[in-house]
Amino acid sequence: MGGDYNPEQWPTEIWAEDIRLMKEAGVGLVSVGIFSWALLEPEEGRYEFGFLDQVMELLHAGGIAVDLATATASPPPWLSSRYPESLPVDREGRTRWPGGRQAWCPSSPVFRDRALALAHQLAMRYRDHPALAMWHVSNELGAHNVHCYCDLSAAAFRSWLAARYGDIDALNDAWGTAFWSQHYGSFEEVLPPRLTPTFPNPTQQLDFRRFSSDALLDHFLAERDLLHRVTPGVPVTTNFMVMHRTNGMDYWAWAPEQDIVSNDHYLDGGLPDPQVELSFSADLTRCLAGGQPWLLMEHATSAVNWQPRNYAKAPGQLIRNSLQHVARGADSVLFFQWRASRAGAEKFHSGLVPHAGTDTKVWREVVELGRILDAIGEVAGSTVRADVALLHDWQAWWAAELDSRPSSDLTYHDRMDAIYRALWDVGVTTDIVHPSADLNRYRLVIVPTLYLVDDVTIRNLEAYVAAGGTALVTYFSGIVDENDHVRLGGYPGAFRDLLGVRVEEFFPLAPGEKVRLDDGTTADFWTEWLHLAGAQAIAAYVDGPLPGIPAVTEHAFGDGTSFYVATRLDDSGTAALVARVLDRAHVSPEAQAAPGVEIVRRHGVTHSWLFVLNHTEHSVEVAAVGRELIRDANCIGTVAVPAGGVAVVREGKYES
Amino acid sequence: MGGDYNPEQWPTEIWAEDIRLMKEAGVGLVSVGIFSWALLEPEEGRYEFGFLDQVMELLHAGGIAVDLATATASPPPWLSSRYPESLPVDREGRTRWPGGRQAWCPSSPVFRDRALALAHQLAMRYRDHPALAMWHVSNELGAHNVHCYCDLSAAAFRSWLAARYGDIDALNDAWGTAFWSQHYGSFEEVLPPRLTPTFPNPTQQLDFRRFSSDALLDHFLAERDLLHRVTPGVPVTTNFMVMHRTNGMDYWAWAPEQDIVSNDHYLDGGLPDPQVELSFSADLTRCLAGGQPWLLMEHATSAVNWQPRNYAKAPGQLIRNSLQHVARGADSVLFFQWRASRAGAEKFHSGLVPHAGTDTKVWREVVELGRILDAIGEVAGSTVRADVALLHDWQAWWAAELDSRPSSDLTYHDRMDAIYRALWDVGVTTDIVHPSADLNRYRLVIVPTLYLVDDVTIRNLEAYVAAGGTALVTYFSGIVDENDHVRLGGYPGAFRDLLGVRVEEFFPLAPGEKVRLDDGTTADFWTEWLHLAGAQAIAAYVDGPLPGIPAVTEHAFGDGTSFYVATRLDDSGTAALVARVLDRAHVSPEAQAAPGVEIVRRHGVTHSWLFVLNHTEHSVEVAAVGRELIRDANCIGTVAVPAGGVAVVREGKYES
Amino acid sequence: MGGDYNPEQWPTEIWAEDIRLMKEAGVGLVSVGIFSWALLEPEEGRYEFGFLDQVMELLHAGGIAVDLATATASPPPWLSSRYPESLPVDREGRTRWPGGRQAWCPSSPVFRDRALALAHQLAMRYRDHPALAMWHVSNELGAHNVHCYCDLSAAAFRSWLAARYGDIDALNDAWGTAFWSQHYGSFEEVLPPRLTPTFPNPTQQLDFRRFSSDALLDHFLAERDLLHRVTPGVPVTTNFMVMHRTNGMDYWAWAPEQDIVSNDHYLDGGLPDPQVELSFSADLTRCLAGGQPWLLMEHATSAVNWQPRNYAKAPGQLIRNSLQHVARGADSVLFFQWRASRAGAEKFHSGLVPHAGTDTKVWREVVELGRILDAIGEVAGSTVRADVALLHDWQAWWAAELDSRPSSDLTYHDRMDAIYRALWDVGVTTDIVHPSADLNRYRLVIVPTLYLVDDVTIRNLEAYVAAGGTALVTYFSGIVDENDHVRLGGYPGAFRDLLGVRVEEFFPLAPGEKVRLDDGTTADFWTEWLHLAGAQAIAAYVDGPLPGIPAVTEHAFGDGTSFYVATRLDDSGTAALVARVLDRAHVSPEAQAAPGVEIVRRHGVTHSWLFVLNHTEHSVEVAAVGRELIRDANCIGTVAVPAGGVAVVREGKYES
Repeated sequence: MGGDYNPEQWPTEIWAEDIRLMKEAGVGLVSVGIFSWALLEPEEGRYEFGFLDQVMELLHAGGIAVDLATATASPPPWLSSRYPESLPVDREGRTRWPGGRQAWCPSSPVFRDRALALAHQLAMRYRDHPALAMWHVSNELGAHNVHCYCDLSAAAFRSWLAARYGDIDALNDAWGTAFWSQHYGSFEEVLPPRLTPTFPNPTQQLDFRRFSSDALLDHFLAERDLLHRVTPGVPVTTNFMVMHRTNGMDYWAWAPEQDIVSNDHYLDGGLPDPQVELSFSADLTRCLAGGQPWLLMEHATSAVNWQPRNYAKAPGQLIRNSLQHVARGADSVLFFQWRASRAGAEKFHSGLVPHAGTDTKVWREVVELGRILDAIGEVAGSTVRADVALLHDWQAWWAAELDSRPSSDLTYHDRMDAIYRALWDVGVTTDIVHPSADLNRYRLVIVPTLYLVDDVTIRNLEAYVAAGGTALVTYFSGIVDENDHVRLGGYPGAFRDLLGVRVEEFFPLAPGEKVRLDDGTTADFWTEWLHLAGAQAIAAYVDGPLPGIPAVTEHAFGDGTSFYVATRLDDSGTAALVARVLDRAHVSPEAQAAPGVEIVRRHGVTHSWLFVLNHTEHSVEVAAVGRELIRDANCIGTVAVPAGGVAVVREGKYES
Repeated sequence: MGGDYNPEQWPTEIWAEDIRLMKEAGVGLVSVGIFSWALLEPEEGRYEFGFLDQVMELLHAGGIAVDLATATASPPPWLSSRYPESLPVDREGRTRWPGGRQAWCPSSPVFRDRALALAHQLAMRYRDHPALAMWHVSNELGAHNVHCYCDLSAAAFRSWLAARYGDIDALNDAWGTAFWSQHYGSFEEVLPPRLTPTFPNPTQQLDFRRFSSDALLDHFLAERDLLHRVTPGVPVTTNFMVMHRTNGMDYWAWAPEQDIVSNDHYLDGGLPDPQVELSFSADLTRCLAGGQPWLLMEHATSAVNWQPRNYAKAPGQLIRNSLQHVARGADSVLFFQWRASRAGAEKFHSGLVPHAGTDTKVWREVVELGRILDAIGEVAGSTVRADVALLHDWQAWWAAELDSRPSSDLTYHDRMDAIYRALWDVGVTTDIVHPSADLNRYRLVIVPTLYLVDDVTIRNLEAYVAAGGTALVTYFSGIVDENDHVRLGGYPGAFRDLLGVRVEEFFPLAPGEKVRLDDGTTADFWTEWLHLAGAQAIAAYVDGPLPGIPAVTEHAFGDGTSFYVATRLDDSGTAALVARVLDRAHVSPEAQAAPGVEIVRRHGVTHSWLFVLNHTEHSVEVAAVGRELIRDANCIGTVAVPAGGVAVVREGKYES
Repeated sequence: MGGDYNPEQWPTEIWAEDIRLMKEAGVGLVSVGIFSWALLEPEEGRYEFGFLDQVMELLHAGGIAVDLATATASPPPWLSSRYPESLPVDREGRTRWPGGRQAWCPSSPVFRDRALALAHQLAMRYRDHPALAMWHVSNELGAHNVHCYCDLSAAAFRSWLAARYGDIDALNDAWGTAFWSQHYGSFEEVLPPRLTPTFPNPTQQLDFRRFSSDALLDHFLAERDLLHRVTPGVPVTTNFMVMHRTNGMDYWAWAPEQDIVSNDHYLDGGLPDPQVELSFSADLTRCLAGGQPWLLMEHATSAVNWQPRNYAKAPGQLIRNSLQHVARGADSVLFFQWRASRAGAEKFHSGLVPHAGTDTKVWREVVELGRILDAIGEVAGSTVRADVALLHDWQAWWAAELDSRPSSDLTYHDRMDAIYRALWDVGVTTDIVHPSADLNRYRLVIVPTLYLVDDVTIRNLEAYVAAGGTALVTYFSGIVDENDHVRLGGYPGAFRDLLGVRVEEFFPLAPGEKVRLDDGTTADFWTEWLHLAGAQAIAAYVDGPLPGIPAVTEHAFGDGTSFYVATRLDDSGTAALVARVLDRAHVSPEAQAAPGVEIVRRHGVTHSWLFVLNHTEHSVEVAAVGRELIRDANCIGTVAVPAGGVAVVREGKYES
C-alpha cells in the first residue's frame, strides 16, 4: 500500500503530518523524486540533494520504504534551453516544446548523457540508504514522446535498420520498395515516416514503431544497467501503462528486462463497464510478469484529470478496483498520488489526501483499504491459473491498424475485447500471452485479429492444436508475415491449413449493415467469401452479399480442433460461440456467479483464495467454503457479498 | 447613424452618389480609412494622402462627420515582405502569412514603429480638418492575431513576466513548477505555451492570455497617447468585439482607457434566439462604458459572410436589432459597411447599399431607420438602470476552460447565458459587471461559474451579502485563486463561508445522464458531494450518483442571503430558481410583457423612455402612458406594437 | 483489355506465367514502368534498363502491346535526399516527405530536369521497339501534389501572374486589393495563399488554383513535346482522374493537349448508387475527348484500398462496370493492376490476379470480360450522341466553394448530381460540356451552380436560347465574373436578362429547415428574394422566410425559353422539373426502361449498338431489335437481361 509522494509541491511544515497520515492508512512504500530533476540539478552539473536527503530520512524514520525514482522522467527547462536539439519533433515536423512533461527525444545523446549522470549521482548517494527499497526508472516511458521524427531520431532509425537488415537490399525486399519507386540506394536515404503526400510505406511505418519502442527500451536498459552496477541488490522497474489504448511500446520485449513488473492503470470512464477493461489489463500485466506477482504502481482513488469527463468513483469502488488488481495477481496497491496537487495540470486528479482533507469518502476508504490489505496479506506470493489463453501482440496491433486496410474501422481490440468480455461474464479466468508463448498448458487458445504472424507462430499454433488443443481464430488473422507481406494463395494465409478454409476475398459491410446467419445470429462489419477446405460449416449467411457462404467453421486438425469465425458476431452470438468452444475444450468457470459478479482465484502452495467482487447494486451469495478474510468470518457453503463489496475466502477448512 | 465607408474600393465616379444616398438615409458619421494603409503608404516612408484628402472634403461638404481610422489595422504587403519577423506565429509554430488581414505580431517592434509613424502622419495632416470628429485606432484589435508564439513574443512575454513577478522564484511559486520538473532557473528559460507533448502548465497558459491581452492594449495605448498629444480635444476609441464568443481580450482592463467605448456586434445565426445574445452583449458593453452611452460602431444590415450559414435578416429585423442596442444604452448606430463590396473576402457581407441597389428591402429599412433615429433623438445621453448584476470576468473564463478540468464540456458561458436568459424572459434588466465592481447598488448579484477569484472578490461579495444583499452562486465558482491554485479545505474554497456549504468531491455526469431533484426539477452535467455547513437545503437529488445530497442551498450570511446551486438545472428549474431569488431580493421587471417581447427603459434627467421590442410574429399590447415617438402618437394606458416592430414611449404626460 | 503491369514487384520466375494468363484473359495492352524510376536510374545519371528490356521482349513475344510510362510519376529517394528543395510544401508550411509517392514540387526545376532526362533516355532506347504502342506520361498528375506552397512555387506563381496580368495594377484590380489593405507594390510581394490569420483573398486563391493546374499541365507538355520529337508517330497520354471529387486540375485545358484522352476511374463506395457517378464520369471523359472514343486506363476488378471501407464488387459487377464505360464511349478497358501486390500501400487493392489466385470470382470474370470485349469489338470507333448538355467548369467549381460564401454547405456538385441523376433515371443521355462549347447541337442546356461566368459564356448561352434553345439555370449561377467580382444590380447578374428575374438577397435556410411550394413540392437549403422581370412564376413558396415569392420561373427569350430554379427542390421536385424541361425541349430517352436499368446507345457509320446494363437484382426485358452480341442471339422485339447483367444489341436487321 502506498503511492507517489511529491513533497516538493508542499511546504515542509506539512511533511510530518504526511508521515502521520501515511501510518494511519497503512502506507508501506512510496515513490519519491519522479519529477524532481529540476530541483535536484537546478543547473547543469550542480546537484542539490538537501531536500531529498530530508525526505528519505523522514520516511525512514516513519518506517516507510522508498521506491526511489531516477528523476529522469522530465528534464528541467535548462536542458532544452541549452540543448534545443533534445526536443522531440512530431510527424508533421512540429517541435514539441517544454511546459508540460516528457519533452525529450528518445534518441537524443545529450538527454541520455544528462539523465545517466543524474541517475548515477542518485545511485551513489542513496546506495546505502536504509529506506531504499527499489528503483523507479523514469516514469511512464513513452506516454507522450514515443514517436519522434527529428533528424537525430532519423539517424538512430537508420542505425537500427542497418542492424536489423544488414544491407540495404534486405530492407528493400522487406519494405517492398519496388512499389511506388521507393527503392533505396543506401541507408542514408531512409527517413522516418514523416508527413507524406499520401500513404507512406506500411513496412516503414511498422519498423518505425518497432524502432521507437526499442529506442525507449534502450533508454531504460541504460539506466537499469547503471543501477545494477552501483546497487546490485536493489530491484529496478519502470512503470508500464498497460491499459486499453496504450500501444506505443511492445511490452512483451520490455517485460523480461524488469526485475519486477509494475504497472499504472486508470479506469477509462468512457467505457460502459470499465471494470472489465481493468481485469483485462491486470491479466495482461500478470502475463507480462510471467505469471509472477506484480506491482500496481499507480491508479486513482477517484477521478483523474485528463479524460474528457473525469468521473468520481462511487462509494466502495476504490476498494473494489484495488482488490480486482490483487485478485488478478498484484501483490501491492499504490496510487498516484499522496496529496492531490493544488497547482499544475493534474490538480483535479484525485489523491489519497483530497483537497477537502480527511473528512471525506476518499480518505475513509483509503484507511479501510489499508486495513483490508493487511487482513489479506497472506495471499502475497500466490498466483493465478488459467485454462484459456488469448494471443496478444503489439506488433500485430500496429500492423492491423495501419492505413490502406480493407476497412479503416477495423481495430485490433474489437474482437479481443468482445471475447474477453464473454469469458469474463461466465467467470473463466484468462491468460493473455504472446503468440510465441508455450501454449501446451492451455485447454483453449483464442486468436483474435492476429493480422501479422511470423512463421514461428504458425508452427506454434499448429503444433498446439495437432497435439489435441482447441483454437478459435477470428477474421483478419494470419494475413501477413512480419514484414506486412500478404501470405498468398487465399486468406488467412498463415492459418489455411490449420483451419481448413480458403478465403478468396474480403467483403466488408457498410456502416449499420447487418447480416443474418442460419443459426439465428446476426453479425455486421465484415464478411468473407470463404471456401471449405477440410473444415465444416457451423453457420452460414442467409443474406447480405454472400448468402450461403460459411461464416463460422470447425476443423479437425491432428488431435485437436480449430474454429474460425469470419464475421463480427453480435454479443449474444459471440457468447454462444465462446460457450461452444469452452465446452469443446472442457473449460469450466472459477465458480457459478450472477451477472456482474467477478470471481478469480489465487493459488498458493498450501491454500487457494477465492476473490468475489460484486460490481452490482445488490448483494449476492456465492458458493464458498473457508474463511472470509475481510470480515474475518467463516463461510459454510456460501459467502454473502454486499452490493459493491468484495470478499476474499481462504478456501478449505473453516475455523470453528 | 452611419457606417464604415471604404470609397477606395469603388471608382471615384460614384462617390458623389454615395454622399447623396447618405443624406437620404440620415447618415451623420462614417468611419474612413480603416484598411487604407497600403494606399496611404504605398512604399515604406512614402505617403500619399490625395485620395483621403478628397474623401474628407467630400464628406465635409456633405455635412457628414468622420471617425478617422489610424489605418494601422492591417499592414501593406511590403511590410512583411521587408520585415518577415513581423508576421505572427501560431501555437503550432506555423507562420501566419499575409493575404487576409491582421498578419502582424503584437510584440513586433518594427510593426509598432511603422504603425505609429503612419498614425502620426495622419494626425498631423488632419488635426485641423473640420470633418474630423473622432479617432478610430486600428480595427477589432485581436480578432485574429491575439496569440502570437514567435520568438519576439516570447521575449516580450518574459519581460511581462519579469514585471509581474519581480523574481523567478515568485514565478515558480505562482506556476507551481515543483510539479513535472518545471522549475525555472531564470526568466530566460521561459517560453510561451507552445505545442507540448502533453498539457502545458495551466498558469503559464493563463499568464500568456493575460500577457496577450496586455500586448494589444499596449499597442492601443501607444497610438492613443500619440493622438492625444497631437489632437488633444478629439476623442479616441478602438472598436471592441463584445460578442458571445469573443474572449481574447480582457476588455475590463481596456475599457477605462477609451475616451468613448465603441463596439462591433454581429448576430450569431447559429443560436436559437440571437436577439438574447445581442441584449447580453449590449448590456455588457454598457457596463464596460461605466453605464454611460456608448457607440455601436459596426453591425450588419442583413447577412454576414463568415458564419457557416449566413442568414439574411427578416423584414423589420434590421430596425429591431438596431433599436435593441439603443434601448440598452447605445447612442449611435453604425454599420459595416456603406456599400457591399464587389470583391474580396467580405463581398457577401451585407451593406447599407446592397449589390442589388436601392430598390431593396435593406435600403428601404436603412432609410426608415434613419427616420426613426431622428424621431427618438431625445433619448441620447440617457442611461439604463439595473437592480441585478451578473459577475463577469474574462480571466475567470480563460481559467475555467483550460484543459485538465473535471469535465472538458464545461463552458464559462453556459450558466451565464441560462441565467441571463431567465432574467430576459421576465423583463428584468441586468448589469454585467466585473467582480471588483461596487455591488452595493444592486439588489441581487449572480455569480455564474466564477472559477477563478482573488481575495478582493471574496471580500467584496461577502461584504455585499453581509450588508443585506442577495447572492446566487453556481457550481465551479470560487475554486482557485488568481494563479489557478486550488483553494483547499473543500470546494468552493472561496465561498464556503459565504454559502455555508462544503463540497468534498465533484461528480460530473455522463453525456445525456439526468438526475431528478426532490422538488421535481431535473438536472444534468454536474453534481457535487455537498455537505451543509450552515446552509439549508432547498432541493436534493433523488437519484443519480448522490441520492439525498443537497443540490440547491440557501444560507443566511450577515444581513443577507446567499444561494448555491451545485448542478445544472434544466431551463424551467433555472427559471424557477431565478424567480425565487428575484422575489427574495425584491426585484421586479421593467413591465409585464408576453414571451418574446423585450422591454427596457432608459432614464434621463427629466424623462424616461420605455423601449418595447416585439420579437414575435404577432402584435402585442404593453402597458404604457406617454408619447410613442416612432409613430408620434399618444399612449393612454397601452401601446400596441406590431409583429416584429418596436415602440419607444416617452413616459409620463401624453400630448392632448 | 489490359492493365498496369508491375513485374518488378515479383520474382522473374513468374513472368512467363503472367504472359500465359494475360493471353487467357485476352489482355492486349499493358502499362509498364509507371513507378520504375528508382530501378531505371538507381543513382543520378546511371541508368539500368536490363529489367525493362527483358519485360518489353517478353510482352512483345507474347503479342501484347505496351503503353510505356516515362517512369517519372514518383522520383527515387536519392532525388529528394540530394535535392530537398524538390519536396512539396503544404499550405501550413509542412514539407511533404518521401515514403509514399509523388513527393515532388510541380515547379521544381531540378525535378523537371531529372524527369525529362529519364524520359529522353526511355524514348531513345525504345523508340523503335515493336511493342511500344503509346506513351504514358507520369501518372495521375496532381493526385497528391497539385498545390505546393514552397518558395519555388511562390516564384513560379509570380511569373504566372506576371504573364496573366502584365502589370501589378491589373492584378490589384483583379484581386480587389483595395480591400483589407492588400495593395501590392510589385509582383515580388505576392505569395501563394499560405495559412493566413483569417480568410485569404478569394481571387488570390482562385488564381493559385489556376496556376497549380497550369504548372502540372506544363510538366505534361514538357514531357509530351520531348516524346513527340523523338517518337513522332507514337500517341502520348497522361491518365486523368475524372471522378466525382477530383477537382485539382482544369481538365478542359488539359484535354486538347492529349493525343488520346485516358482516364482512371474508381467507384466511390460511400455513394448510395456509385454506378450513376461512374456514368457521369464516363460522360465527362467522353466530352473531354471531344466526343471521340477514349481509353479507360485504370479501374478496379473489385475493392480498392484507400477508401474508408473498401467494398468488394458483387458477382457480375466487374463486367457491368467495365461495359458502362464502353457504353459511354470507352474503346478499351484497362485495370490497375495485373497482380494484386503482396507488399506496399496498395496490397489490398484488387488486381486481375488476386492474392487467392485464379480459382476466384475475380479471375473468372476477368476471363469472361475478355471474351465479351472480343465479342463486341465492332463497337470500337463508334460514338455517343446526346440532346442534353450540362455545363461544367472546374474554375466555377473552385470559386463556388471558396470560403466566405452565403452558405459553407453549398457544393458545386450538389445540383449537378441531382439533375444528372434525374436524367439518368429516365434514360436520357447527357453530354457534360464546358460553358464555351458550341451549344447549338443540343435541345436542352442545363446550368447547375455555375457561380463564376465570364462574358463569353453569357453571350454563348444567350445566343443559344435566343436561337430557340431551352435552358435551365439553378441558383448561385452567374454571380461573379472570372475575377470573382460580383456582377452588380441584382442576382444572378450574368443571367438576369436571360432569365427575366432580379434577386435582391439570398436567404439560405437552416440545417433541416424545409419550405413548401405552391405546387406541392418541398425544398430546402436555399431560397432567394426574387422579383419577376419578364419571367413567369411556375411555383412560389407558401412558407419559410419568403412566402409568396417565386421559386421556379420560366421566361421566353428570343425564340427560346429559359427556366430558373432558385431553391433546392427535393428529388421528386427535381425529377418533375427535369421532366417539364425535357418535354419543352422535345427530348426523349434512348429507350423505355425500368428503374435501375441503364440504356445507352453508340452510333457508328452503318450501325448503332444499344447497351442495356441491368443494375437491379431481377431480370428485365427491354425493347430491342437486332443481334445481341454477348450471348450471340437475335432480339426480335425485346432483349432479356438477367439480374446484374448486360446486353449489347447491334440494332437493325437480326440474323435469321
